[in-house]
Amino acid sequence: MKFNLNNKSEFARRSELEFTRGKVQTPAFMPVGTNGTVKGMTVEDLESTDSEIILGNTFHLMLRPGDERIRDLGGLHKFTNWKRPILTDSGGFQVWSLGDLVKINEEGVKFSSPYDGKKIFMTPEDSIKIQQNLGSDIVMAFDECTDYPSTYEEAKKSMELSMRWAKRCIKSHKSDSAIFGIVQGGMYRDLREESLNKITEMNFDGIALGGLSVGESKEEKTEILEFMSDKLPEDKPRYLMGVGTPQDIVEAVRYGIDMFDCVLPTRNARNGQLFTSEGVINIRNAEYKNSDEPIDKNCDSKVSQNYSRAYLNHLQRTNEMLGSMLATYHNIAYYQSLMRNLRNSIENNKFAKFIKEFYNSQNLEMPDGPL
Amino acid sequence: MKFNLNNKSEFARRSELEFTRGKVQTPAFMPVGTNGTVKGMTVEDLESTDSEIILGNTFHLMLRPGDERIRDLGGLHKFTNWKRPILTDSGGFQVWSLGDLVKINEEGVKFSSPYDGKKIFMTPEDSIKIQQNLGSDIVMAFDECTDYPSTYEEAKKSMELSMRWAKRCIKSHKSDSAIFGIVQGGMYRDLREESLNKITEMNFDGIALGGLSVGESKEEKTEILEFMSDKLPEDKPRYLMGVGTPQDIVEAVRYGIDMFDCVLPTRNARNGQLFTSEGVINIRNAEYKNSDEPIDKNCDSKVSQNYSRAYLNHLQRTNEMLGSMLATYHNIAYYQSLMRNLRNSIENNKFAKFIKEFYNSQNLEMPDGPL
Repeated sequence: MKFNLNNKSEFARRSELEFTRGKVQTPAFMPVGTNGTVKGMTVEDLESTDSEIILGNTFHLMLRPGDERIRDLGGLHKFTNWKRPILTDSGGFQVWSLGDLVKINEEGVKFSSPYDGKKIFMTPEDSIKIQQNLGSDIVMAFDECTDYPSTYEEAKKSMELSMRWAKRCIKSHKSDSAIFGIVQGGMYRDLREESLNKITEMNFDGIALGGLSVGESKEEKTEILEFMSDKLPEDKPRYLMGVGTPQDIVEAVRYGIDMFDCVLPTRNARNGQLFTSEGVINIRNAEYKNSDEPIDKNCDSKVSQNYSRAYLNHLQRTNEMLGSMLATYHNIAYYQSLMRNLRNSIENNKFAKFIKEFYNSQNLEMPDGPL
Repeated sequence: MKFNLNNKSEFARRSELEFTRGKVQTPAFMPVGTNGTVKGMTVEDLESTDSEIILGNTFHLMLRPGDERIRDLGGLHKFTNWKRPILTDSGGFQVWSLGDLVKINEEGVKFSSPYDGKKIFMTPEDSIKIQQNLGSDIVMAFDECTDYPSTYEEAKKSMELSMRWAKRCIKSHKSDSAIFGIVQGGMYRDLREESLNKITEMNFDGIALGGLSVGESKEEKTEILEFMSDKLPEDKPRYLMGVGTPQDIVEAVRYGIDMFDCVLPTRNARNGQLFTSEGVINIRNAEYKNSDEPIDKNCDSKVSQNYSRAYLNHLQRTNEMLGSMLATYHNIAYYQSLMRNLRNSIENNKFAKFIKEFYNSQNLEMPDGPL
């Protein structure tokens, strides 16, 4: 992976990642393809929304259909027919989400498969191997996601374990793909800084911020982002894991983040929540039953161009698959058009203008911050 | 609607329907779009499978979202973004399917909405009006589907009611769209002939065979088809409602049927049943877990070209929406390629050869019949 930083506007960055499987323009949003599919979307759909990289979930894929099976079938790209880059998470976050069902020791984690109850022991080395079996373009280090809230001692202990695991991940990573390290440290600035220094020393290809969007307030998250913004190395891509709403993304770009992933646009679509240039609407509401308006009059994607709010309302209320399909397409198209607009604004030194217009059109108050 | 009969091979016919919204090559298969969507398929998908006409269900659409609402939103074509012709059924079959919950008298039928229990009284005139509100290209006469089994007296009484209703439908039909009459008469030849004569006299634009595929044996159905085959007028399209499997379609084409509709390819797809040039497979079976074979090696559609059986197996076993989407696409593509092959064979006077190869490749025994 090559990283080219093209322009900056205060902390906000316009850059490019180069893989053998294609280029990724950043700031970039990565749709989440948990089970080897972004729910409700074909690969042609994804490509037509300008999605240049998607995420695959190691935890889910290792259990079903199994990473060795995928390897034997030619890797995740061939399996899913997605030809552009794929980032795989490490599985750590999903294991952590199992809560009390997980036992963690220095060597790794022990948990039961939620599908068949089978006991599984997973080490950092296993995670790297599995991601290699999947044929990932960006492999993520296996870490422990620090609980929120945590005491200083808990956060420190957890972060230090993640750093020792990060070292083992780097050591066992043998493929040509990129590998990103993950900064932990909870809500404690000095722990975050210590973690960042360790990750930077290990010379990962990119730097992720983990342990955010796990229950903390927007202010706490912003505080950490702000604290990190002038400490993150310039020459590496920066990835804020599991974030977020359009506003969350705009705010994080403001503090210099380059990459995002989140299930929000796909999951919410299936529940009728649509993101638009004028804010969120729930398309199931009775008020849209007779509306011949497009979903988003400022959107040039095929859903807003071809279908009315009334049609989407009808499809969602009758639980038709196409209701989820079109809503998902719309939300991903909206996210990718937001990313395009963000990139253009940074490229053309109009980021300050863009961000004001964004808050204005979304009818939200703009928080203080760098511009 | 214009009807052009281009070639024949014994009873099998190669013809064309011309509408202002486009041409339909027959023998034609019409995917079923019950709620204003063919489940799991976009209109672009449908077009790319060579589907030239789809079916909309009057019963479902009048209840949700309502035919007047659809009319006010510009009609079913605009609502769904499907630009090619649409045939709407009359609602009669779905009402009949409610069984004991329906009261039928000379004037019409009374039933409760399965959605909100609301009492609805529907007459033949209502059905025509509703189909007109939807903006249908082929309106179907409102009939009573005769029960199977029925005594001669029951079948006669039911058929005669349908014939009186047919007359009322013709009388109340005012739009430019085509209108098809429906032949009833149960399993009784003389009643079928009497019904056909009445429908023919009324000068409908096309002739449908109703009351088949309602529980009778294949042999009984074939007997009726055979009996009708030399009595149906040459200069009108013939539509066998609700049929069927690939074999059912091939057999009916043999007896001169031009048009078909059925939920089988879409419904079965969602349960993992895939139609292929070598017979039906259930893609959820464990034997496909590791198979890098295409769904159908003789199929040039995007699903067989781009995905393995193992991937479809995985998607279906994890209940991913894409599993239903790709399976549905495949089945409709298979049906439409079957129809293309049928048309080509009749056009090139190779129908007898085609039908033998079909039975051979499907590993089925070919019934006696015209060739």
